[in-house]
Amino acid sequence: MDIKKIIVTGRMYKDLEQIALLDNKREYTFIPEAEVSPSHFDWADGYVAFKPTESFHFARLRWVHALGAGVDSFLYNREWKKDVLLTRTVGSFGRKIGEYCLSYILADVQRHDKFQQYQTQRQWLPSQQKLLQQLNIVIFGTGTIGKEVARMLRSFGVTVYGISRSGASNCHFNRVIPITEVHSLLAQADWVINTLPLTPITEKLFGMHLFSYLHGAGFINVGRGASVDENALLEAIERGQVRRAVLDVFREEPLPAQSPMWAHPNVVITPHISAVTGLDEAMDSLLAVLGEIDSGQERISHSVDVSRGY
Amino acid sequence: MDIKKIIVTGRMYKDLEQIALLDNKREYTFIPEAEVSPSHFDWADGYVAFKPTESFHFARLRWVHALGAGVDSFLYNREWKKDVLLTRTVGSFGRKIGEYCLSYILADVQRHDKFQQYQTQRQWLPSQQKLLQQLNIVIFGTGTIGKEVARMLRSFGVTVYGISRSGASNCHFNRVIPITEVHSLLAQADWVINTLPLTPITEKLFGMHLFSYLHGAGFINVGRGASVDENALLEAIERGQVRRAVLDVFREEPLPAQSPMWAHPNVVITPHISAVTGLDEAMDSLLAVLGEIDSGQERISHSVDVSRGY
Repeated sequence: MDIKKIIVTGRMYKDLEQIALLDNKREYTFIPEAEVSPSHFDWADGYVAFKPTESFHFARLRWVHALGAGVDSFLYNREWKKDVLLTRTVGSFGRKIGEYCLSYILADVQRHDKFQQYQTQRQWLPSQQKLLQQLNIVIFGTGTIGKEVARMLRSFGVTVYGISRSGASNCHFNRVIPITEVHSLLAQADWVINTLPLTPITEKLFGMHLFSYLHGAGFINVGRGASVDENALLEAIERGQVRRAVLDVFREEPLPAQSPMWAHPNVVITPHISAVTGLDEAMDSLLAVLGEIDSGQERISHSVDVSRGY
Repeated sequence: MDIKKIIVTGRMYKDLEQIALLDNKREYTFIPEAEVSPSHFDWADGYVAFKPTESFHFARLRWVHALGAGVDSFLYNREWKKDVLLTRTVGSFGRKIGEYCLSYILADVQRHDKFQQYQTQRQWLPSQQKLLQQLNIVIFGTGTIGKEVARMLRSFGVTVYGISRSGASNCHFNRVIPITEVHSLLAQADWVINTLPLTPITEKLFGMHLFSYLHGAGFINVGRGASVDENALLEAIERGQVRRAVLDVFREEPLPAQSPMWAHPNVVITPHISAVTGLDEAMDSLLAVLGEIDSGQERISHSVDVSRGY
């Protein structure tokens, strides 16, 4: 495949200008999202961004590169043009998301909130905390992110179950279970972590039915917001099925100011920060993909299986 | 050594009664601290407790067993009777303290406070967080607790320096440095963790002089309160040398209600809970020591070097 003219847009477009210095085989257009017009696509054969612009259309494009780990903005509820290569950034997302999850699980186990409250009241009330090794955690998704979160947790002796489509076993988990059998595990889960991509299968997967199997588990969403039925989640908290929710992603982002979740005492909200793409890793991934394209490699290593949606 | 009559007192005395069922070679008296009278010591040759009672005196005692990891209440500013064996509980203190420290370091790196504040204001303000691997952490103490905290942090790629009397190298640390040379390291420390026992050398070790080398480090005290000059710490926070202090131990416990630390926005106070002795580990340690005494072993494995004070 021969890529000659590339549009680079989105939050990082300015910082990525340095790529033109490292790659003199191609022409680049670095441009803010709002300025990308339909005619740019009559010029370009490559497109690099976090998501499609409003003006996005395939026209002459033969390659699209996603600057984030998620590609649902390109694939979900959209038509993809056959034969256009879709690649994505593979960085330290697993590690970042792992530390994010661990930070909230540990803060909960170590009762940061409780001790903060006691401190305000100048109260000295000792208690014994659990160790991580006493926890059972269920991770939805056994891809690069799910595996890394599992590896981290297991190094503390957590019992970690993975949920995948196939249930194929994987050394990073104590056990992997196909999603069709997940219910058997949920009753004993201390935490449930969603790392799944958004696809027609995972949309609203975390709804009333799934939550009904939980007995006071914590729930962390670092996958995609649309995988969660937000009303069902609030109801599950009301019923004690979910004890606390830590949400980094939402159906609508930024989370609208009128959302009841902002003020809910059992909900922690963070603004989609569990795995921000760093400039270094954006550059590294982009250069790696371009290198593989140039070398005529048949199977590009960061390419997305468009039919599966991730 | 022949131990026949044992006083068991302190917080756990009732729960430890089951030991009499497992050990029918000896007589036990299980009794709350306030009821231990001087005459009990004319009867007993063994004493098991977290600390000496007010009535404590050596009399016929030949063996003292500390239910906690720290033995300063028995040794510090007190006379010890030569030839009395002092043993202590060795449990999962390292792991507990490691998870405690990690929980506060991760909550800081992941900016829990900031995002909590934004949530209250319904503000969506993304930012990129550091990874643990970008941190330098200095741990005072390279004993069982310091080593386990180091091991845990290094598994995340943290650069961990150990501080000990000798500076003898140790595989759990990137480098170990004798306490006389610690100043060279402090300027680059993101966190300083104290795990040291209280001895004449470590009393008020964390004072104005030591803090003056720090440039906005976090400080965690999981050792002993009397190792810290509390006024100097508050001044160091004022000067920006210490950015945040997480304190689990204090010169006076419970921390007096009038202490200015309770209300300080940069101080986190927890009520000496980073390594609570569990009943299981108290029993296990006690039975292990009794077993070694019975077998006539010369060097008891959980014994304390009284001359060093730990």
